[in-house]
Amino acid sequence: MNIGASLSILLVLSTVHAFQYNQLAQYVDEHQEEYVEALRDWVAVESDSSNVLRRPELHRMMEMVAQKLQQMGGAVESVDVGDQELPDRQTLALPKVVTARFGSDPNKHTLCVYGHVDVQPAKLEDGWATEPFNLTEINGNLYGRGASDNKAPVLAWMHAVEAYQKLSMALPVNVKFIIEGMEETGSNGLEAMILAQKDTFFSDVDYIVVSDCGWLSRRPAITYGTRGNCYFLAEVHGPKQDLHSGVYGGTVIEPMTDLIGILDTLISPSGKILIPGIQEAVAPLSDDEWRMYQDIEFDVDDYKNKIGVSKLMYSNKVDLLAHKWRYPTVSIHGIEGAFSDPGTKTVIPSKVCAKFSIRQVPNMDPTVVEKKVSDHLHSVFSKRQSPNTLKVSMVIGAKPWLADIHHPLFEAGKAAIKRVFSVDPDLIREGGTIPISRTFQDVTGKSIIMMPIGGFDDGLHSQNEKMSRYNYIEGTKLFIAFLNELSQITEAAV
Amino acid sequence: MNIGASLSILLVLSTVHAFQYNQLAQYVDEHQEEYVEALRDWVAVESDSSNVLRRPELHRMMEMVAQKLQQMGGAVESVDVGDQELPDRQTLALPKVVTARFGSDPNKHTLCVYGHVDVQPAKLEDGWATEPFNLTEINGNLYGRGASDNKAPVLAWMHAVEAYQKLSMALPVNVKFIIEGMEETGSNGLEAMILAQKDTFFSDVDYIVVSDCGWLSRRPAITYGTRGNCYFLAEVHGPKQDLHSGVYGGTVIEPMTDLIGILDTLISPSGKILIPGIQEAVAPLSDDEWRMYQDIEFDVDDYKNKIGVSKLMYSNKVDLLAHKWRYPTVSIHGIEGAFSDPGTKTVIPSKVCAKFSIRQVPNMDPTVVEKKVSDHLHSVFSKRQSPNTLKVSMVIGAKPWLADIHHPLFEAGKAAIKRVFSVDPDLIREGGTIPISRTFQDVTGKSIIMMPIGGFDDGLHSQNEKMSRYNYIEGTKLFIAFLNELSQITEAAV
Repeated sequence: MNIGASLSILLVLSTVHAFQYNQLAQYVDEHQEEYVEALRDWVAVESDSSNVLRRPELHRMMEMVAQKLQQMGGAVESVDVGDQELPDRQTLALPKVVTARFGSDPNKHTLCVYGHVDVQPAKLEDGWATEPFNLTEINGNLYGRGASDNKAPVLAWMHAVEAYQKLSMALPVNVKFIIEGMEETGSNGLEAMILAQKDTFFSDVDYIVVSDCGWLSRRPAITYGTRGNCYFLAEVHGPKQDLHSGVYGGTVIEPMTDLIGILDTLISPSGKILIPGIQEAVAPLSDDEWRMYQDIEFDVDDYKNKIGVSKLMYSNKVDLLAHKWRYPTVSIHGIEGAFSDPGTKTVIPSKVCAKFSIRQVPNMDPTVVEKKVSDHLHSVFSKRQSPNTLKVSMVIGAKPWLADIHHPLFEAGKAAIKRVFSVDPDLIREGGTIPISRTFQDVTGKSIIMMPIGGFDDGLHSQNEKMSRYNYIEGTKLFIAFLNELSQITEAAV
Repeated sequence: MNIGASLSILLVLSTVHAFQYNQLAQYVDEHQEEYVEALRDWVAVESDSSNVLRRPELHRMMEMVAQKLQQMGGAVESVDVGDQELPDRQTLALPKVVTARFGSDPNKHTLCVYGHVDVQPAKLEDGWATEPFNLTEINGNLYGRGASDNKAPVLAWMHAVEAYQKLSMALPVNVKFIIEGMEETGSNGLEAMILAQKDTFFSDVDYIVVSDCGWLSRRPAITYGTRGNCYFLAEVHGPKQDLHSGVYGGTVIEPMTDLIGILDTLISPSGKILIPGIQEAVAPLSDDEWRMYQDIEFDVDDYKNKIGVSKLMYSNKVDLLAHKWRYPTVSIHGIEGAFSDPGTKTVIPSKVCAKFSIRQVPNMDPTVVEKKVSDHLHSVFSKRQSPNTLKVSMVIGAKPWLADIHHPLFEAGKAAIKRVFSVDPDLIREGGTIPISRTFQDVTGKSIIMMPIGGFDDGLHSQNEKMSRYNYIEGTKLFIAFLNELSQITEAAV
């Protein structure tokens, strides 16, 4: 075949794809109200995985996922991943993990889509402007808990596959789904399930895509790294029971004072981690990275205004991005067991448990971090000579994930974004932890890409979480285009 | 009159009193089942002043008090003290304050008895061994919510007056009652009512007695001081809303880190208050006090075991009592706005509000304490150079109360205890705050005494509250004897 002929075949192929895309995109536009209604139905289910009282809702949510995939003609399985152990030694059934398969053509690549349909807690009283479990559209934004994290992206992937089906177009690649319901509390049971199905469900998977994140700005993005997270409980236990602070105050060494004292040794006012041996493990910032960060679209003032503070921890773009993505940090989330209600109560709490976490980056090792933190806290606690007891435990130890941005999978992602949005994407990392990427990489050995469709201002884990209608609908088109681009990766390139 | 004649008259008077007492004490012993039944009826009324749903019960309780005093022939008034404002801007009628008068002989002293008949919340599920509103006697203890705090003491005062009446003996002093129903939630409306009746109800009152406290050990006690309390809110406000710690951690200066940092400057591990100017105001411990504390019956090991700690803030009795009663202390009660539920949540709370209080003793001044605390916190906060904002406010500023233990009122108390229990009382203070004593002192200018009959282990505000039958019945005799002793105070001595 001469070069001219090859070129014209390529042009034809390209035209065919372009044609397909336009038809598919039009279908998506025409069905967007249906998509919004589907999201409304899903958001209405309070599938809060952290609240055991909501477990029935979470089971119902998983059934809705399985039903949807079945209606689409997938080969669906609801995989029992066992029980969750509760602190009181009771057990509770974990939500099933739903898997599905669309197509099994050995001549096609196989993409596995990961997503989750559990959500963070939310209550109107927390400061939501609308009922968190009643999807409400205001100015093109769809407000509701779980809208962006991660119900709309999961639905967008299903709608992408469905669009091909409805237009009787063959799927360019085989598509598998793996949808879980425990992501917000640490994906209990999922790693074991992936390990168990390594040589079955995952044996023919070539690529895994995760859309559980967001863009950095208004420019579409592809994510190539996430921070890990080590989540700690530091519990100080003193008197047998809560005491009246008037009657006992001054005679007992209060657990709350001890806890405040040790928490104050974790991080300096300027953000330096004070635990010996933590910062030392971090990979230094390379010149390449510095240059990449310089080129990324990121408006420091915008970011500051959005957060609503007069000063950030760093004043320039590169330092901010570096500390958001590739440096560790300590956040103190709160204290359980102390008085946390409105009003005044004169109590000496007998048992107080601080929750804090340290974000993980290459080359930190959670096992080492666990020991360093525990040693440090016990050391500063022992200097207090308190009769109270300290217990430190790491309840989450998620590793960071980092991919090669020059892998063909990422080239396919870039091309899909170019097609739908006519721009080059930002190549970004995620400051948050999506342990599943790392788990997929470690267990299956497959290549992973994170392709977000959430906006930069979606308010994940916060009040007034939203997904914009634009991102939801254009995101569906992006997934359609990405399936096309994937089909063009040659074995040699991989 | 020669000295011999005076002496024989005194002896005769003394004998008459002794005779009266024995008759009265026998009457009390013979009617103790009636007294227990009266307590049963009162405990059965769930007069929880903190629960607006129990307000009808509370009104009924006040009516029962008024009825009882009327049946005894008192001049009774039920004083309307207005409405309570609820958080939702609704209002609710406060329980009436019941006053009564027995006798108005201008040649006799007049004692005013203060008490309350509202109670703390209680539910069987909280860990009660018996139904909290069904008085249950086990091994000589009468278990029930409000039994010790403060229903039995109020009934004991009524039965003391009644015993004189039933035996047709003249009351040695005029007796007034002021019984309220909002003590457990801050005595709403009472201070204004006392102020309004300063020149009417209180005009002929000489002494006020409060029996709303307990002994320190098995030895009877008289209480001559209470600590005050300054309750603070320290609120650090940062981002507009809660943030995801993965997405934003490392780029924002977290309010929780700031709050922990400033809280850690309040008190040292060994209990020293670190706020400049607080400890300096405290009256030094006198040699007399030291000796008094030495003589008090207080088992340090017992106290330690009851609390359930291996070490207290101080190891010797005098230091412990001094720090329980007459030194200030800082207790950090908790933090509102941070994550306080079970489980793990990766949140950077945007607004966190610490609650802490400083117990007040002579010669501290809450207005000065408020300024010192605010200045100190703002000073350490400004050193952090945080963009977040700090707001410090004092929401309770209750002064301490301290009486002169050599006042004839206290001599009368000591003599009454000696008569009934054949021991000298412990002269004690209360570490907690009973603002009504200070209010009575400030508004009426009268002398106050606190004469407890509750046991040291009555479990006030806790599960399984009780009043022992012994303390209830002997306490009634104590009040009878105290009325006698009061009548012998001469104007000159006062």
